[in-house]
Amino acid sequence: MSEKLNQLKEILGEIADLHYAVAVLDWDQQVNMPSQGGDARGQQVSTLTKIAHQKATSDEVGHLIQDLKSELTESDSDDAALLRVASRNYDKATRVPSSFVAEQAIITTKAFEAWVEAKEKSDFSIFQPHLEKMLGLTQKYISFFPPADHPYDILLDDYEPGMKTAEVREIFDNLRPQQVELIKAITSAKQVKDDFLHKKYDENKVWKFSEVIIKKFGYDFNRGRQDKAPHPFQTTFSVNDTRITNRFEDDNPLATLFSAMHESGHGMYEQGCNPEFERTPLAGGTSLAIHESQSRMWENLVGRSLPFWEYFLPQLKKSFPSQLDGISVKSFYKAINKVEPSLIRVNADEATYNLHVMLRLELEIGMVEGKIAVKDLPEIWNEKMKEYLGILPPNDAQGVLQDVHWSSGLMGYFSTYALGNMVSAQLWEKINADIPDLDEQIRKGKFDALLGWLRGKIHVFGQKYEPQVIVQRVTGSKIDSAAYVRYLTKKYSDIYGL
Amino acid sequence: MSEKLNQLKEILGEIADLHYAVAVLDWDQQVNMPSQGGDARGQQVSTLTKIAHQKATSDEVGHLIQDLKSELTESDSDDAALLRVASRNYDKATRVPSSFVAEQAIITTKAFEAWVEAKEKSDFSIFQPHLEKMLGLTQKYISFFPPADHPYDILLDDYEPGMKTAEVREIFDNLRPQQVELIKAITSAKQVKDDFLHKKYDENKVWKFSEVIIKKFGYDFNRGRQDKAPHPFQTTFSVNDTRITNRFEDDNPLATLFSAMHESGHGMYEQGCNPEFERTPLAGGTSLAIHESQSRMWENLVGRSLPFWEYFLPQLKKSFPSQLDGISVKSFYKAINKVEPSLIRVNADEATYNLHVMLRLELEIGMVEGKIAVKDLPEIWNEKMKEYLGILPPNDAQGVLQDVHWSSGLMGYFSTYALGNMVSAQLWEKINADIPDLDEQIRKGKFDALLGWLRGKIHVFGQKYEPQVIVQRVTGSKIDSAAYVRYLTKKYSDIYGL
Repeated sequence: MSEKLNQLKEILGEIADLHYAVAVLDWDQQVNMPSQGGDARGQQVSTLTKIAHQKATSDEVGHLIQDLKSELTESDSDDAALLRVASRNYDKATRVPSSFVAEQAIITTKAFEAWVEAKEKSDFSIFQPHLEKMLGLTQKYISFFPPADHPYDILLDDYEPGMKTAEVREIFDNLRPQQVELIKAITSAKQVKDDFLHKKYDENKVWKFSEVIIKKFGYDFNRGRQDKAPHPFQTTFSVNDTRITNRFEDDNPLATLFSAMHESGHGMYEQGCNPEFERTPLAGGTSLAIHESQSRMWENLVGRSLPFWEYFLPQLKKSFPSQLDGISVKSFYKAINKVEPSLIRVNADEATYNLHVMLRLELEIGMVEGKIAVKDLPEIWNEKMKEYLGILPPNDAQGVLQDVHWSSGLMGYFSTYALGNMVSAQLWEKINADIPDLDEQIRKGKFDALLGWLRGKIHVFGQKYEPQVIVQRVTGSKIDSAAYVRYLTKKYSDIYGL
Repeated sequence: MSEKLNQLKEILGEIADLHYAVAVLDWDQQVNMPSQGGDARGQQVSTLTKIAHQKATSDEVGHLIQDLKSELTESDSDDAALLRVASRNYDKATRVPSSFVAEQAIITTKAFEAWVEAKEKSDFSIFQPHLEKMLGLTQKYISFFPPADHPYDILLDDYEPGMKTAEVREIFDNLRPQQVELIKAITSAKQVKDDFLHKKYDENKVWKFSEVIIKKFGYDFNRGRQDKAPHPFQTTFSVNDTRITNRFEDDNPLATLFSAMHESGHGMYEQGCNPEFERTPLAGGTSLAIHESQSRMWENLVGRSLPFWEYFLPQLKKSFPSQLDGISVKSFYKAINKVEPSLIRVNADEATYNLHVMLRLELEIGMVEGKIAVKDLPEIWNEKMKEYLGILPPNDAQGVLQDVHWSSGLMGYFSTYALGNMVSAQLWEKINADIPDLDEQIRKGKFDALLGWLRGKIHVFGQKYEPQVIVQRVTGSKIDSAAYVRYLTKKYSDIYGL
């Protein structure tokens, strides 16, 4: 048995290497690549992805998994978990032909290039034909699987194993009225002042400060780095090389700080994985919602808290004395938590954020069901923005073109952001029970107990436990919105005096 | 036939993609990678290299080449050339087992990491065990091939197809006495003044100026970029993505300009290749000597000429008014061509450069012959520096540890630098015959006729013609040192009033 397991691990290791190499090619494309390099890069990604897919779907892997399944008794061991995840991956991969995977890689590379140009020029028509092709691929992808309760289930399952469209809708349906009610209460209250956040801040200084913060968190720069890219993201080439990207926007200069906290949350999750899982299917985060629970926790529950800024505001003031002159920590705290319907999801406040996600989820489900045509997206986007948030994007760059996801074939992805918010609050209640003086620690710039808790309870397990299993293990219940609603209500009652 | 040719091209295309991906992984390792990423990166490079090697040595490729050989009649067509190069590559690759290639990749990655650390700490003992392993691999590599006139021939042939150790020695033996005589004459003449080159220059301004120059040359930044790395180099991921690296040294600030010119020469060669050769074995430069003829031409024959600085010095003075106050173009020209025995090869002047190469060639041949042990390298290095150039490195960082090559397994490589110098002068005489007003054009900052000539006569052919063939085609004779000696003598007679 041990020999077969080693054989399987050897092949899975090679597959992992190919995927890591593709991740480097992708990262380089978004961070460094000269403008004309796209075609060749697409070809390279296509070839590597094809080879990885051929290996992942080989009879050899299938037979090894089959043989090991009958030999490995059901247990909580790492090897049993490895086999379970390898088997799930094999089942999924064998349904998708190599030729499809290769075609998808080429089309995706071109779609990404088109999206960058379309966003720059704020011209959806540049992106439209590419998105139509991407949607065609998505439909074709769904067709490879047996019919599900809802075709969108198949997409969702790739990011949130086992989760159903109906479940997500139910969680969202519970959340939506409470969130809408809260926003209503807030918008009738006196608005907070945040003009000082929108003064001119020096880009390099903000960038450096973002790295001061995430170093304090425990993001390890010997095993990672932060670079500029059109869209912030985190990517992993090894447990010892997990990188983040960020950007700077003149009209929202301090957003760079919160993006860094967010992406470093992803990065620390990946850096905390058991190193023995390296090059196996157990490496990395277990699902996007769990991943997002980490990034959102560092960004919002830590990074937008009062104790956090009691520690960091004096330092920030040293970098920006004129911009922050006379601003109390309470004023700063209120400003960074200002609730206001806004255009850009990644810059949205916590109270409105989930509505951005719900909008995208509805568009995606509509496209998958064939009820929404790609060409109508800008119009429908703008209508829904008006309906949900009462604001109209002045152009598509700030509307339908704002997110990188669809250009990269990531459909089924968005709702995991909102689920992540909910998990972050569920975990936070448990953490505060386990570390009663956490606020006091944060007030002193101490994050090691928090990171240690996350490492031991979540990070170290990698993909060993499925998302609902790990949430249940740690908090005693499955994903639900109650803790998140409690958190939002408490926070905004204080800030807006509700 | 056409179908078989397409099959062959398809497989060769995938092999090319894998090699390009490895090049990206290597570039990233030298430019970006966090310090702890090395082990995983070595594993990734190893896996991709192994897969490429498996494909390159597959029976399928062997049979296709065999079948096509009997069908493709000998001709000057691109397809015939492609088959010739593919066949040569196949013959070489099938002699080297996959397991060796994989082992080599892992050891090389670690050796590079060790070299970086050893150089930083100027401690050869950190690098020594790694270099011993690398030398063991080199010996093993040689053993895969039938005995040659000299074992070093097998290494040389990988960089300079068809070239023999004896030929190189003969060329060097012709050159050495004339070069030594010239240096003797120069060192008895009055030394030129160059103190203003070693003042403090702002790194960012120098970096920007280097990009102004190479843009003017015609290096295309839409198909390339320049980044910082411990050692300047050029790498190719596609005809549309050829990058260069550079560095800045406080004690030799303007060396950055000449390194940029040098590396851009490599980059323009790669950017000028026939785009139809993309993803085939005909893509890229045909040999290291021809490559070096391009980089050395832009660096030295163009970049250290009087007309060049008649154009650029006024601009450089605008960036550095105090450092260059009162310096005439003739004084600047003399200063950048100052001949003085020095420690670092890449910063050496044209008159002494080849002696650095000869030193390395002798050490490499000694190691390959088993007459020189790795542990004795620092001592022998220092002795030879004393003997050839009359100077003693104060530490190993400025001595035996200065070059990246041995850490990357590039043994057999150095002599091609000197051969490149000779080819550059041979080409230069022909170019000046074809473009009689070239000096005048350079004086006006015009480089398009020069680049156009190189494109049409050299670049566009990629690897279609072997190095001696293309030198013969263009200049009417094979590689020899006469033109280079004429060039050096004329230049230094003027500068030093010999």
